[in-house]
Amino acid sequence: MINANNQSPHHVVVVGGGFGGLYAAKALSRDKNVNVTLIDKRNFHLFQPLLYQVATGTLSPADISSPLRSVLNHSKNTKVLMGEVIDIDAQAQKVVLQNEEINYDSLIVATGVSHFYFGNDDWEKVAPGLKTVEDALEMRRKIFLAFEAAEKETNPAIRRAWLTFVVVGGGPTGVELAGAIAELAYTTLKKDFRNIDTSEARILLLEGMDRILPPYAPELSAKAEASLSKLGVTVQTKTLVTNIADDIVTMRQGDNVAQLPAKTILWAAGVKASPMGAILAERTGVQLDRAGRVLVEPDLSVVGHPNIFVVGDLANFSHQNDKPLPGVAPVAMQAGNYVATLIQQKLKGNQSVPFRYLDRGSLAVIGRNAAVVDLGFVKFSGILAWLTWVFVHIYFLIEYDNKLVVMLQWGWNYWTRNRGARLITGESLLTVNGEQRISDRFTSVDNKTAVEV
Amino acid sequence: MINANNQSPHHVVVVGGGFGGLYAAKALSRDKNVNVTLIDKRNFHLFQPLLYQVATGTLSPADISSPLRSVLNHSKNTKVLMGEVIDIDAQAQKVVLQNEEINYDSLIVATGVSHFYFGNDDWEKVAPGLKTVEDALEMRRKIFLAFEAAEKETNPAIRRAWLTFVVVGGGPTGVELAGAIAELAYTTLKKDFRNIDTSEARILLLEGMDRILPPYAPELSAKAEASLSKLGVTVQTKTLVTNIADDIVTMRQGDNVAQLPAKTILWAAGVKASPMGAILAERTGVQLDRAGRVLVEPDLSVVGHPNIFVVGDLANFSHQNDKPLPGVAPVAMQAGNYVATLIQQKLKGNQSVPFRYLDRGSLAVIGRNAAVVDLGFVKFSGILAWLTWVFVHIYFLIEYDNKLVVMLQWGWNYWTRNRGARLITGESLLTVNGEQRISDRFTSVDNKTAVEV
Repeated sequence: MINANNQSPHHVVVVGGGFGGLYAAKALSRDKNVNVTLIDKRNFHLFQPLLYQVATGTLSPADISSPLRSVLNHSKNTKVLMGEVIDIDAQAQKVVLQNEEINYDSLIVATGVSHFYFGNDDWEKVAPGLKTVEDALEMRRKIFLAFEAAEKETNPAIRRAWLTFVVVGGGPTGVELAGAIAELAYTTLKKDFRNIDTSEARILLLEGMDRILPPYAPELSAKAEASLSKLGVTVQTKTLVTNIADDIVTMRQGDNVAQLPAKTILWAAGVKASPMGAILAERTGVQLDRAGRVLVEPDLSVVGHPNIFVVGDLANFSHQNDKPLPGVAPVAMQAGNYVATLIQQKLKGNQSVPFRYLDRGSLAVIGRNAAVVDLGFVKFSGILAWLTWVFVHIYFLIEYDNKLVVMLQWGWNYWTRNRGARLITGESLLTVNGEQRISDRFTSVDNKTAVEV
Repeated sequence: MINANNQSPHHVVVVGGGFGGLYAAKALSRDKNVNVTLIDKRNFHLFQPLLYQVATGTLSPADISSPLRSVLNHSKNTKVLMGEVIDIDAQAQKVVLQNEEINYDSLIVATGVSHFYFGNDDWEKVAPGLKTVEDALEMRRKIFLAFEAAEKETNPAIRRAWLTFVVVGGGPTGVELAGAIAELAYTTLKKDFRNIDTSEARILLLEGMDRILPPYAPELSAKAEASLSKLGVTVQTKTLVTNIADDIVTMRQGDNVAQLPAKTILWAAGVKASPMGAILAERTGVQLDRAGRVLVEPDLSVVGHPNIFVVGDLANFSHQNDKPLPGVAPVAMQAGNYVATLIQQKLKGNQSVPFRYLDRGSLAVIGRNAAVVDLGFVKFSGILAWLTWVFVHIYFLIEYDNKLVVMLQWGWNYWTRNRGARLITGESLLTVNGEQRISDRFTSVDNKTAVEV
């Protein structure tokens, strides 16, 4: 039984405000027997499943984000702290931040995963992944800048490289990205350029396994591949990327090695655990899997530390004799809820039952009107699957105040086939083609004499 | 008369896609006698009057931006080019970009202005201005990070500095910013923090003249000041900022010098011309005013070069014996339309009439339900002024596909008093309080062994 302190409420520290951490905090938010501190590096929760829509110019970051403080501001027992946990003291029961330490009675670690480049960390610079708002804006910048550069390029080979988009990894994110880029090139941007025909763009989706969407049923993988082909995406399975350098992707399919000039390479392949996995291993002795994820007990706790839990993508949890659960939002939500209930039950002196994930199905969207849905007992694709996808995502956004805006934005984009959020922002706006911005080659004004207006 | 080339259509090059340049391009977009090339450093038009709503977390950048290509994609005679003009050859009639030169028959320069720190360029780092999307996101980051830092700060004096917001400049932008920050602190964020009371925040608006909104009628300045005071903003007129350093603002009011510790200082005071002003002066000999703006002829052309025009904030234009027109969107729009018509008339051999600005009035919003409107023949404030402000802004956003989304977002925010777009993004998320992020203090995973998921 968890050591319940009778003088003051049981203090639950939650590290990470993604689906796992936020759902745990919300489940505890009205319990007078506990106090909750939610720690996150960011001040907002991100609805990651729609991040690809930011990367491809449909939605703005704020449309899929909610300030953690406003989600939790009615929870009087909950504090939100913007900060980064850099260590844990499991004996003294505290987490260590840069300038402070916080004691916990129970600790829930939900810090997720980041991209992994299979040991080729230099690929990250040229092939961004998609985990954060900044990642998505960088992808958006790269995608739309590629069309601008192609419009200006006179050398046909270089122009072709600007119009070649390679998405590495055929999971849901890769499939959704490739589909959205195809719609951009073949529909949305069609009338926007004068020197190039955007429908000449090539979009490649590369997958190492023998089919895309490997966790889904094989017939749905086939349907998804057919839908992508119809959209204009070239799907290459059993293909491994062996090098990315100088705007050339080197790939191997069996014994064949091919090189493809491509200026835009997007990474949707590997993940590795966030640093909290290694911290937990060092401080508690818990085992990690090869990706650095924590092998948790049947109740999602860390072996030997019944008051430390790991939920969400950072946890490696398997039902008996089964594969580990996938790193998707529903698993994290259910795990967060489960741990919250478990803590409450233990405080009442009740016995805990092991975590069981209830798989309500998987879905992936491919484009306008196309998606695949696997509910276990039934599998389907096409427009009905697409409507299911829309409904499910609106339903889960319901927690946030962005639902109406996203619905309207989607409706509008659907009818107009337009995408308003295709701003190129951030650094090096014009460094394509080796251009640089002039900085005060001409100084426009005597520093002493400008007038206030 | 402009030299009309009979072989090919008259080529109009427009530099800058703000209100002046875009309205000129749109007015020419269906004329078969001209070809238009619109050059901009960015790929989008920005509705700058609402930029303060991005800076204060109400709207997203994409809500007030429109891709230039999509605004102009039905104009078959129009090319959009993303690039930066770095020189002009007025004799050979061409503009020079980094990697190309473009010939023009007529040239419209509409590159606007940027902030000016009255010779103290080092203030820019600590007191950002508000001209670009990046500026707005930097302001947003600073504002919301200040509350986060205050929540963590235990030293009362430093906490007070984090909760002190100084807006320099009492024009429309400064007034709107100060009002929006007051609403944030005293309403929106009220329930979000546990250690601080956000209503203890101090918001100062500093203005060098004897009243805020100096171009407006004095009675409206007084109304605006009263509305701001009611919102909780301290307005200090006749106050000059003499130094900004080490989180301390030094200001002088008459003979009194005061120093105020403040971590968030926002700049809405000076403007200076973009570099195109100096380029024009050097290449054509045209006179500039003290802010570097181009003193244009009655038809907005550059003296001695009847086929070069300057419109928008970069132009210094006065009706006979009057003050120069203010740097506001309506002036730029009318000037853009005027020059487009003038070019068309000259091509037909008709005589041109001088530019006349039709002042339909000025408005500034102060907060929820409060604004001031000056239509010349009538002046009013309060909720009716606020509704006028809303209506006018929606009306002008009508040109873009964002109108419905902005309306809904505003409606939603109005009823809920919420602001969803208060993301802290970008660099140095956690460098408040001297904190730094851990970078691989713990390495989480063997680089060779992570698995694809």
